[in-house]
Amino acid sequence: MLVPIRVLVNGIGTIGKRVAHAVSLQPDMVLVGVSSPRPSLGVLSSLSRGGVLEGVPFYVRGASPSLFEERGVRVGGVLEDLLGSGRVDVVVDAAPGGEGLRNRDELYSRYGVRAVFQGGEPAAVAELTFSPFFNYGDAFGRRYVRVPSCNTTGILRVVSALSSLGELREVFVVIARRAADPADRKGARLNALSLDGGVPSHHASDVRTVLPWLNVFTVAVKVPTTLAHLHVARVRLGGRLSRGDVIEALESHRRIVVAGGEFEATPDLLEFFRDRRLRGDMYEVAVLEDSVHVDGEYATLSYVVHQEAVVIPENIDAVRAMFLGGDPEAGMEATDSSLGVTRGRLAPRRALVAARQS
Amino acid sequence: MLVPIRVLVNGIGTIGKRVAHAVSLQPDMVLVGVSSPRPSLGVLSSLSRGGVLEGVPFYVRGASPSLFEERGVRVGGVLEDLLGSGRVDVVVDAAPGGEGLRNRDELYSRYGVRAVFQGGEPAAVAELTFSPFFNYGDAFGRRYVRVPSCNTTGILRVVSALSSLGELREVFVVIARRAADPADRKGARLNALSLDGGVPSHHASDVRTVLPWLNVFTVAVKVPTTLAHLHVARVRLGGRLSRGDVIEALESHRRIVVAGGEFEATPDLLEFFRDRRLRGDMYEVAVLEDSVHVDGEYATLSYVVHQEAVVIPENIDAVRAMFLGGDPEAGMEATDSSLGVTRGRLAPRRALVAARQS
Amino acid sequence: MLVPIRVLVNGIGTIGKRVAHAVSLQPDMVLVGVSSPRPSLGVLSSLSRGGVLEGVPFYVRGASPSLFEERGVRVGGVLEDLLGSGRVDVVVDAAPGGEGLRNRDELYSRYGVRAVFQGGEPAAVAELTFSPFFNYGDAFGRRYVRVPSCNTTGILRVVSALSSLGELREVFVVIARRAADPADRKGARLNALSLDGGVPSHHASDVRTVLPWLNVFTVAVKVPTTLAHLHVARVRLGGRLSRGDVIEALESHRRIVVAGGEFEATPDLLEFFRDRRLRGDMYEVAVLEDSVHVDGEYATLSYVVHQEAVVIPENIDAVRAMFLGGDPEAGMEATDSSLGVTRGRLAPRRALVAARQS
Amino acid sequence: MLVPIRVLVNGIGTIGKRVAHAVSLQPDMVLVGVSSPRPSLGVLSSLSRGGVLEGVPFYVRGASPSLFEERGVRVGGVLEDLLGSGRVDVVVDAAPGGEGLRNRDELYSRYGVRAVFQGGEPAAVAELTFSPFFNYGDAFGRRYVRVPSCNTTGILRVVSALSSLGELREVFVVIARRAADPADRKGARLNALSLDGGVPSHHASDVRTVLPWLNVFTVAVKVPTTLAHLHVARVRLGGRLSRGDVIEALESHRRIVVAGGEFEATPDLLEFFRDRRLRGDMYEVAVLEDSVHVDGEYATLSYVVHQEAVVIPENIDAVRAMFLGGDPEAGMEATDSSLGVTRGRLAPRRALVAARQS
Repeated sequence: MLVPIRVLVNGIGTIGKRVAHAVSLQPDMVLVGVSSPRPSLGVLSSLSRGGVLEGVPFYVRGASPSLFEERGVRVGGVLEDLLGSGRVDVVVDAAPGGEGLRNRDELYSRYGVRAVFQGGEPAAVAELTFSPFFNYGDAFGRRYVRVPSCNTTGILRVVSALSSLGELREVFVVIARRAADPADRKGARLNALSLDGGVPSHHASDVRTVLPWLNVFTVAVKVPTTLAHLHVARVRLGGRLSRGDVIEALESHRRIVVAGGEFEATPDLLEFFRDRRLRGDMYEVAVLEDSVHVDGEYATLSYVVHQEAVVIPENIDAVRAMFLGGDPEAGMEATDSSLGVTRGRLAPRRALVAARQS
Repeated sequence: MLVPIRVLVNGIGTIGKRVAHAVSLQPDMVLVGVSSPRPSLGVLSSLSRGGVLEGVPFYVRGASPSLFEERGVRVGGVLEDLLGSGRVDVVVDAAPGGEGLRNRDELYSRYGVRAVFQGGEPAAVAELTFSPFFNYGDAFGRRYVRVPSCNTTGILRVVSALSSLGELREVFVVIARRAADPADRKGARLNALSLDGGVPSHHASDVRTVLPWLNVFTVAVKVPTTLAHLHVARVRLGGRLSRGDVIEALESHRRIVVAGGEFEATPDLLEFFRDRRLRGDMYEVAVLEDSVHVDGEYATLSYVVHQEAVVIPENIDAVRAMFLGGDPEAGMEATDSSLGVTRGRLAPRRALVAARQS
Repeated sequence: MLVPIRVLVNGIGTIGKRVAHAVSLQPDMVLVGVSSPRPSLGVLSSLSRGGVLEGVPFYVRGASPSLFEERGVRVGGVLEDLLGSGRVDVVVDAAPGGEGLRNRDELYSRYGVRAVFQGGEPAAVAELTFSPFFNYGDAFGRRYVRVPSCNTTGILRVVSALSSLGELREVFVVIARRAADPADRKGARLNALSLDGGVPSHHASDVRTVLPWLNVFTVAVKVPTTLAHLHVARVRLGGRLSRGDVIEALESHRRIVVAGGEFEATPDLLEFFRDRRLRGDMYEVAVLEDSVHVDGEYATLSYVVHQEAVVIPENIDAVRAMFLGGDPEAGMEATDSSLGVTRGRLAPRRALVAARQS
Repeated sequence: MLVPIRVLVNGIGTIGKRVAHAVSLQPDMVLVGVSSPRPSLGVLSSLSRGGVLEGVPFYVRGASPSLFEERGVRVGGVLEDLLGSGRVDVVVDAAPGGEGLRNRDELYSRYGVRAVFQGGEPAAVAELTFSPFFNYGDAFGRRYVRVPSCNTTGILRVVSALSSLGELREVFVVIARRAADPADRKGARLNALSLDGGVPSHHASDVRTVLPWLNVFTVAVKVPTTLAHLHVARVRLGGRLSRGDVIEALESHRRIVVAGGEFEATPDLLEFFRDRRLRGDMYEVAVLEDSVHVDGEYATLSYVVHQEAVVIPENIDAVRAMFLGGDPEAGMEATDSSLGVTRGRLAPRRALVAARQS
């Protein structure tokens, strides 16, 4: 095997701790360490005794090591020293939105370390906004690559799946988005619905950083829930297709599962994954089978995006694509097999069940 | 003045108690009484001492009068006796969904009383599904008329407003719908998002009971909130129009208000009406000004529908149209002036404010 | 009649707009005007066209009058000018917590105007923390008086009612408190429970500003709801009493209602008041009848406190007591009859109902 | 090693799937199989491909095997056949409340199989309501044993810890209880607070099934959250103790953790365990350190009970105690080491941190 890619994860919140865990599962990567400005809940939960990242060296920046050590976190040294030592090939930056840009200028650029940024940063933070389904090869050799945020990632996967049926002429998505993550301290308005940002929401332009030619429009509604986003998409396909064609395209696409009618609501899906993955991570976009409707050139469908986990595979892909290039399918397969990402169906078709029951 | 229309309201829940109150405010109607099978919260809150319907005669059906009297409700007699007495011209039936159909066959048909039904009943319950904006005149002389439910009412008003700009070619609406009313006892799933019914949701076919030719598609998402529904509509207009045209069409339409950027979320709107109307009823559809976007032939907009109150004006219209016919505008104006229903803007344009502030 | 007390309300949020409305209903007071630093939702909803305070003069402070005028608010002048003119006897300060103290020093003290403060201010803001049940007479002639906040007001009323049965030896209250008001913009944690402040919570010491000798301990738990607080109190009475004694003491006490078993949850109570009072204000503390349990010397009971409205009567009392003194009962009765505050029972006793049904 | 205890788990919901998983981790037990009447979400999530119980034989009762097989569940046979075969020593019954009693009469009694029941069953279902801290030895040789429900389990642990300081004279607990589990389909009232059951709540009498002499009183308030219960307890200790004594007693007690001030709310605790255990199970009762207050003879404290997981260790203990008897500490230690149950502190003392920071 080749020399593994040496990765540091900077920012140990919802995304960072998951990326770090995922990196640690890659045979061709090594998790050199993690860093975060404060002993946040994410640091405490993942790095203290019994946590999934227990023992991973933590690198401090502008804070006292004892602040971390007394919480049971193993401190490896000072972040700047590590970055200057040449022992890090790439940082996955999962700092809160906007801090990544500053980190790039103050840290990564200064120490000549490459970086992957998250979708909370402006697209200009990087040379490329990355989607393994559309521009895997473009990432090779890049210094800075950005992985778009959860909702954009979800849209891109569905667009990729449906594009296998022909070029999409229009994509309109309404996003019912969770107002806060489960342990978010900043809070949200109780019992309230509101638009999230302007119209169109930023997701449309974010999709176009990857697919500039796509006719896409998005609106996001903030809803008082913590578990997941639910999208309703109306897509104008290149021609008349059957519902079966559409479902098959979705079922056979990487990182998409089709959830039968037994999965009625977001908690059903997340409960399913609680019984199989740490943190209940749902890496897959879960299409609600009962929602898939095709009339003429239009397909309507609804799917669930787990904001905490959906971008993790794409982050791992990005690292691999930047350093190793190669075949996109092979790269994604490496990610998916290491993380156990699935595709296909979660429950039997209703018709089938009904038939067998009678 | 003419002899007033003698109205009974059957079913004193969320809708029924509001219709009864609204009837009592009409100069050309008289509220003969109300009825309900059980001493529900709606009965107790509206008819007991101090309630908005205090003193209105209550007619029992298959229950002991004392059950109501001991709760401070004035009992006028037995429902069947009243209906048989010829002292009721029309019943507004606001019983729970499905019971209206049974009431029609067991009561109204038997005693030869005309009736207005709610949208929870199947369209077949009545000869006409009514919208004063589209078929006011058709209601005259009808025996049974149905007023569609809150979300359909909201869509019909917006369609009416936008149709003033030309024929609509496509209407696609995603409804983020409240999962339960504020005091609903049946409950809802906490912290969950799910589709409400199939795809398309029933609202599309319900709109077509009024506008059979309309190309309309709807999807409803159930969200854990009690206050109001929020719609996101994408409409293909007959031609290219400006954002100003669209806003003007909405602002000038009856029973629609355009809420400036200061109204960010559903509670802001409902709080506004708490300071001006009993129960905080928002009879108007409230378009979020910041949501109105026009690109080419497409207009996208978002609006709030208060499920408790939005159908009240249309119920009053229906009664009037059935008995008096006449000019739709005059009929609706009678309703709106009695209830204080408004149109236009709720807050100044942001640009204007900004200009004056600087 | 005497010359009316000239009142200005400063701060038009949840409490301020209600106090202003209540002042306007008093025969012995006149609402000279209101003020608020910003055109907040409270200003907009209550003072613009159709609002309950439409036409009341608004006095600006450090802001452009046009900011209010363009929202349909009638501007009467500048706050400082008004205060300096001698046309205001007392300000009810309902500014956000902490601002009242600053207002006292910068405005009321400087212009020699008396003031009533809210419980969000430290007790030291005033000469007296006021409860009409315990120290009505002490308020006469005071310059600054403070009305404690909603939960403390609720506890004081219940303590007053139970004290009629003998001296209370211990009072322990757990407050399940709403995390945000219905239209709160600051938000709260979704799906979360947490302690609110330390243990004991500040309510215990706040109660003791009125009743220094009382053995009282409180703990507050923040819960994701907007409608009301729910208290569970365990009280050690001076001797052995029956459940009937305790319920009678509660039922016969001013500003307390006993809600029968039909009122199961906070929304049931608030829905009841939506049908009888603007904004659905519940001025009364509502004891849940089924919760009242007496074992030996201990009484356990649970009651609902509507955080938006419960302090309004006490604010009105405070103004009257400061200026007119006199008999507490007469003063409170003036408040209660003007606002329609009730006492007694909301629904019949279950046993009674059951007996009659059988 | 001895012959392992052969265990079947009947009922694969929230509790059953966790007990089954826990049984599978015991060196002295073998999970013979599981059963459930329907292919519920719990069955699907835990037993289908990738689930934590994948491959465990499923035994059907009154349902077609294909209903399970087509969902990827491996069917081992018919439940009655298995029970009649002598290959099961004990059933842990985790059926919905009330069904356990029926299962006992229809199944376990008939086939002479011993059983452990959950707290949703009446105490009379079993010969003993079990707490390993109080009556471990009494379970040996019993046919039917009942493990009390989550809140009672939490109270019993805290009582056990505090009893180490002397006999408790009074225990009063207010339970802010979650209204529904995360994926509950039955729903709950949104935005509502209500009492759960009567006063006292059933928890007090349930505690007394274990500790008949204890002076305990409980009240439960239902709150719209899914994650966990939060208790506020006020305990009269046998004498005057210091806060340090109380915290030490809690910290050193099995299955209790003391969560420092960094853990502010229920989601903080559950997020911590998501990073270390499948399903984020928190087996421990988590005392909020900042809530611990001692004044004179009274200790007040607040703690979090994870309703999904807290009873799992006690279920495992019950099986072991029934069959092996022996030393309680050794029995519990076997459970705790297999499941990774901890005790002590979750985060450093604030004072300590402050000291080091300065």
